Formats: sequence, structure tokens, C-alpha cells
Amino acid sequence: MSAPQPRTFDRSNLIHAHPRDVRAAARRGDLAYVTHGLARGHVQANLVIVPEDYAFEFLLFCVRNPKPCPIVEILEPGETEFTMVAPGSDVRTDLPGYRVYRNGELTDECHSIGEIWRSDHVAFLLGCSNSFDAMLERHGIPQRHLEAPDGRISVYQSNIACTPAGRFHGNLVVTMRPIPERDVVRVTELSSRFPIAHGSPVHIGAPQAIGIDDLSQVDWGAYNPLRAGEVPVYWACGVTPQAVALASGVPEMITHAPGHMFVTDLVIEEQQTA
Amino acid sequence: MSAPQPRTFDRSNLIHAHPRDVRAAARRGDLAYVTHGLARGHVQANLVIVPEDYAFEFLLFCVRNPKPCPIVEILEPGETEFTMVAPGSDVRTDLPGYRVYRNGELTDECHSIGEIWRSDHVAFLLGCSNSFDAMLERHGIPQRHLEAPDGRISVYQSNIACTPAGRFHGNLVVTMRPIPERDVVRVTELSSRFPIAHGSPVHIGAPQAIGIDDLSQVDWGAYNPLRAGEVPVYWACGVTPQAVALASGVPEMITHAPGHMFVTDLVIEEQQTA
Repeated sequence: MSAPQPRTFDRSNLIHAHPRDVRAAARRGDLAYVTHGLARGHVQANLVIVPEDYAFEFLLFCVRNPKPCPIVEILEPGETEFTMVAPGSDVRTDLPGYRVYRNGELTDECHSIGEIWRSDHVAFLLGCSNSFDAMLERHGIPQRHLEAPDGRISVYQSNIACTPAGRFHGNLVVTMRPIPERDVVRVTELSSRFPIAHGSPVHIGAPQAIGIDDLSQVDWGAYNPLRAGEVPVYWACGVTPQAVALASGVPEMITHAPGHMFVTDLVIEEQQTA
Repeated sequence: MSAPQPRTFDRSNLIHAHPRDVRAAARRGDLAYVTHGLARGHVQANLVIVPEDYAFEFLLFCVRNPKPCPIVEILEPGETEFTMVAPGSDVRTDLPGYRVYRNGELTDECHSIGEIWRSDHVAFLLGCSNSFDAMLERHGIPQRHLEAPDGRISVYQSNIACTPAGRFHGNLVVTMRPIPERDVVRVTELSSRFPIAHGSPVHIGAPQAIGIDDLSQVDWGAYNPLRAGEVPVYWACGVTPQAVALASGVPEMITHAPGHMFVTDLVIEEQQTA
């Protein structure tokens, strides 16, 4: 596997770039950093690769749990190009960072998976809240986590059970955004029109109702404190399928590294439903 | 397999029955007829059963072609109860008629598949235009094919290619409904809110644009002639996945017999999207 690249590349050139240029930079090894804010206005996606033996059950899990697992594109075993959402792409090289898990343990983090790619690997692109954040931003909804230097959102393990599928089962992972009371209805309406970015909230209000004892104790990310007049609003999170797949005992799984997403050619606004 | 039952059962009792009573009548062997109009207001579904070896590719075909293949519920290999949409159901007995295909040939037609059911069978319920017809009826859109005694709709092989998945590929099969000009916009809006019943039209107007030379020459069903001031409107048809699966060389496939659908507990109006 390729060694991590020095971070000398100026990613600011990619903010308004075409997605294919972001993917090319990752492929060259120039872009070894998170994709948040790059190729503005385009859908970014979580990557999950499982062996073919797990593909039907994992796809069934996605179909049964569309909020955490909105399907962007799924390849057939061994296929490497997302022809529908990113013509010319290569799943083995076009993300700036990958993680490799074996038997539920993180065993490697790398910038290319060409050397470990096999013909029985099945690649899933699933919707991601990077697209969601950009949509809220355009509509003037404050985004607390983007005010912090590291831009990390609050992520929690909820007690909401996903619908199981075969060997895949577990609870929903959620993100929490502090939303001003006056924007709660609007953010619910807006997000419901973007099922590709996790759709409408799964809960609004008291964290205890979904099994979160203390908002300040995040399971992933960083705590974004509520200010006066703000309500915590929770959405399904794309970490869910990874957490569930890892807990299921899948012998091998490859994902994007956190924040190092696959940037598709899809324009977010065109993904809006009626 | 059970022999065909005598048709002495009075199906009119089932028009306003709960779906479970329709399924129970089929299970007892009392209902050996089409389900159109039974358990009014509930979603009816196409059944497709394929061997596990074809399950991922067939599910991928459904995901890639949501208009002809709206997913209602999919079971895991060997499972027989549709717990989400029809608790207490049994896929082996609860349809009034089944067809068995081997290597692309119709080899049997029967009222139960208990004797040929295997642990590697994977059952798919896919949306059906029976639900669609009921919805249009409630909104006062004329339904030409329901005026005919046998209630058969016009069905055509179009030249619109489905997105292939693995061994599954082929063209879209469409239904055509003659719609009064004044209702064309409304029927498009209405149907777009029901993706579970094939969603919005795939085409409006000239049949030649989608590869149909002569509307009077149907590929399945019966021709419903256009009257003055009517426009032909075409929707994706649930026959598509069967036609595609048969053409793909799947060694064994079990489906409902035409018109002998699986009746779910889902209420059609509750399946409306925003």
C-alpha cells in the first residue's frame, strides 16, 4: 500500500472544482485530507466494501434501513468504476483515505487499496451528511459544528434498533445538530426532501427518548453545545452501516477513512425529491 | 402440489375484508382466482422467488430500476413470513396462484408451493399496479381496462433499456392507460406520489417514441382503444422483473400467477410520499 503523502497540496483549488478533479487529486496521492467542502454542491458518499458472501445481506440491510443507508450506487463483484455517479472513477484509488478492518479490528489505514483489491469485493456508496451540511448551509440554517476549527459533529449511539438483515443488526448511530427553535420545522421539511443525505430527522428534542443520557458525552466526533433557544435535532448517520457491519463479524471490510469521502458527480439540488 | 380448487367460493365477501382474510382464503384453497379489487385500499404485490445464488444480483436490479421494481419486502433465504407487511403470512400458501419456471420455461401452475420450497429460496414482493388502479379510481380518473369484463390492461414491450445488474438485463415492459387530455397532468402528479405502485409515467404520448409500433398489437393483456381526446400514458409494469429474470437464464423462478397477487396489510394512502 502507498505510504501517506506529505500534505503540501493546496486543497483550496478543489473547493469549486469538478468532482473528477477531486478524485484525480486523490488518485495521484496529492489529496490526503478530508473532502468536506470540496467540489461544492456535489453529493459525497460513504464507502463500504464487503466480500461477495455478505453482499446480499448488506444490500438488504441498506434497503431495510434507508435513513442511515441511502443507496447512491452499488457495484457488482470485482467492479471498480462507479459508472452511474462518477464515470471514469476507480474505487481503489479515488478516495483520499481508506480503512481496512479484519474480523472487526482496524488493521490498516491507507491512500490506495489497489494491492488488496479482489474480484469478490463488492463496493457500496451510501449517502453522507457532507451533502446534507451543504444543503442546510445554502438555506441559512446555522451549522454549529462548522464553526469549530476541526468541524467535527456530535455523534451518538442511540437505542433505536435498525431493522436487521441476516448477520447485520444493531442500533442506529445518530448525528445531533443544535437548531434554533424557529428553524426546527424548516430544517425538518428541508431535510425530508433529501433522502440521499439521510432524509428527515429521526428525533427532535430530549436525548433520553432515544437512549442518550448526556449530550456532552459523545460516542464519536465532538460535542457541539446547545445555546439558549436551541433544540437538539437528530439524524441517521452514515457511520451506522460501518458500525453494524463491524459488529456483525464480517471477516473483512474496507471503508473510507473518516471524512475522506468519495466525491460523486451528482449535483445535490438535483437529488431533491418532490 | 395441490390440485386446482373448484371455484365455488364467493369472493365478494373479500372485497372489503382485511388482507389477512384474503390470504387465509388462499391458504385454505378457497380463493383460486385473481385478487383484483379484494381487500380494497391495501397494497397488492408481485411475487418473485429466485435461488440465493441470484439474490444479490436480482436485488441490485430492483434497486437500479425502482419504477418497474418498487421494493415492498424482501425475505432472507428460506424465510417464509413477510413480517413487515403481512405478519402471520406464508409465502408458500397465501397467494391464490403460482407459476413455476425452470430454465426460462413455464413448467407448472399451482395453488401452493409448499412441496417445492427450499431453504435457498429468496422471496421478493414488488409493487403492483392493482394498488395503482385503486388509487386512480378513488381520484376519479377513468380506467378503461376496468370497464371490460375481463379487466385486462394493455401491456407492451418497450425499447427503454433497464439498467442491467449482473445476469439481469432487458427492456422495460409498460402498461398503457388511455387518459383524457384534461387529466394527464393530474394523473402524472398523483402517480408520482406512489413510488410503491410504479410512480410517475415513463412516457406520455406517441408510442413510437418508446418502440411501440402499433398500440393495437399488445404483447400481454388486451388492447384498450383510445377514444377522441384521450392520450396514451405509459407506466413501468411489474411484469418487467419477471420478463428480465426469465430472459436471464435463471434456472428456477417462482412467481404469482398473473393477477393472483400477494395482498399485504399496507394501506395504499399511507404509502404516499410528500
